[in-house]
Amino acid sequence: MASKVDSREKILQTASRLFQLQGYHATGLNQIIKESGSPKGSLYHYFPNGKEELAIEAVKYTSHYIESKLKEFMNSVADPVKAIQSFILDTANQFDHPEKIEGIPVGLLASETSLLSEPLREICVQSFKKWEDIIANKLIENGFKDNEAYKLGMLINAMIEGGIMLSITNQDKTPLLTISETIPKLITKKG
Amino acid sequence: MASKVDSREKILQTASRLFQLQGYHATGLNQIIKESGSPKGSLYHYFPNGKEELAIEAVKYTSHYIESKLKEFMNSVADPVKAIQSFILDTANQFDHPEKIEGIPVGLLASETSLLSEPLREICVQSFKKWEDIIANKLIENGFKDNEAYKLGMLINAMIEGGIMLSITNQDKTPLLTISETIPKLITKKG
Repeated sequence: MASKVDSREKILQTASRLFQLQGYHATGLNQIIKESGSPKGSLYHYFPNGKEELAIEAVKYTSHYIESKLKEFMNSVADPVKAIQSFILDTANQFDHPEKIEGIPVGLLASETSLLSEPLREICVQSFKKWEDIIANKLIENGFKDNEAYKLGMLINAMIEGGIMLSITNQDKTPLLTISETIPKLITKKG
Repeated sequence: MASKVDSREKILQTASRLFQLQGYHATGLNQIIKESGSPKGSLYHYFPNGKEELAIEAVKYTSHYIESKLKEFMNSVADPVKAIQSFILDTANQFDHPEKIEGIPVGLLASETSLLSEPLREICVQSFKKWEDIIANKLIENGFKDNEAYKLGMLINAMIEGGIMLSITNQDKTPLLTISETIPKLITKKG
């Protein structure tokens, strides 16, 4: 029997996956209710303000998930090149089983809603910033200057988002694998 | 007085811009009719099969536009690093006047529709491939091996798409500028 916490979590999990894969507009509340197996009433109970509120919470949910995953990968090995590569490979491997994808970043939702909903845009900006900072901190720990580390964080985030977009469109993980191969060229200490 | 060719072109121009900025689902045929200043009848005359057909033609239209622009930049200077950087800077500068954006690639439309419409997905895949090949050919002309050149073409396309996505979301062209700065690190001949 699902507890109240489980029920909210289940709705968010389903909503996050559908928003990321199909986008904001193509995802209806009825589909979220159906695929999460939750009663209609609980969606409106937990998210009384409807779809925009649910999307904001779904971005927060995905963002936390990606943050923990990123931190885990950054802590798994001392070398920042290897840590970043293993995160990208893990993201790429999700494309082997597209029906199980649950940790792809929020790029589609972000681009689709950035001109339409200011609160959604802001939460996407914050999520991107958090991921970039996690990568930047790993580089700073390894002797990179702040300025250079934050630039690389943004760059690597842009590459991953673009690589996910191409991998989804091409239905093939090669773009993400190519990006992973490139990381050693980018992360080189000067001097 | 608009000729028949102008009228079809105007509809495609407007549709391309709206699909790229707002996405497929958020863009309605009525908005395209209104913003293009075309009579309703001419949209249905030129695109009798409706929105999906119009979106496919809009992707082709954008794709040709980007192809000519890319070729122009690749031919403008011998050094491939400078040529690619000037294309990225030109894309970035569009974000100074978002209301005038007309040449951003098809990433949003591609990610939003890749799971929903196979014909749309295929035309996006073909467009990406054409742009990647133009970049790759510039590198091959400059002595890069085919394999390395095609990898770099895909990588640079992924970076540009990701950079556009972040620049749209952040409402700031810094991600694209950072990508441009990185190009010299990526394009280095071996040996």
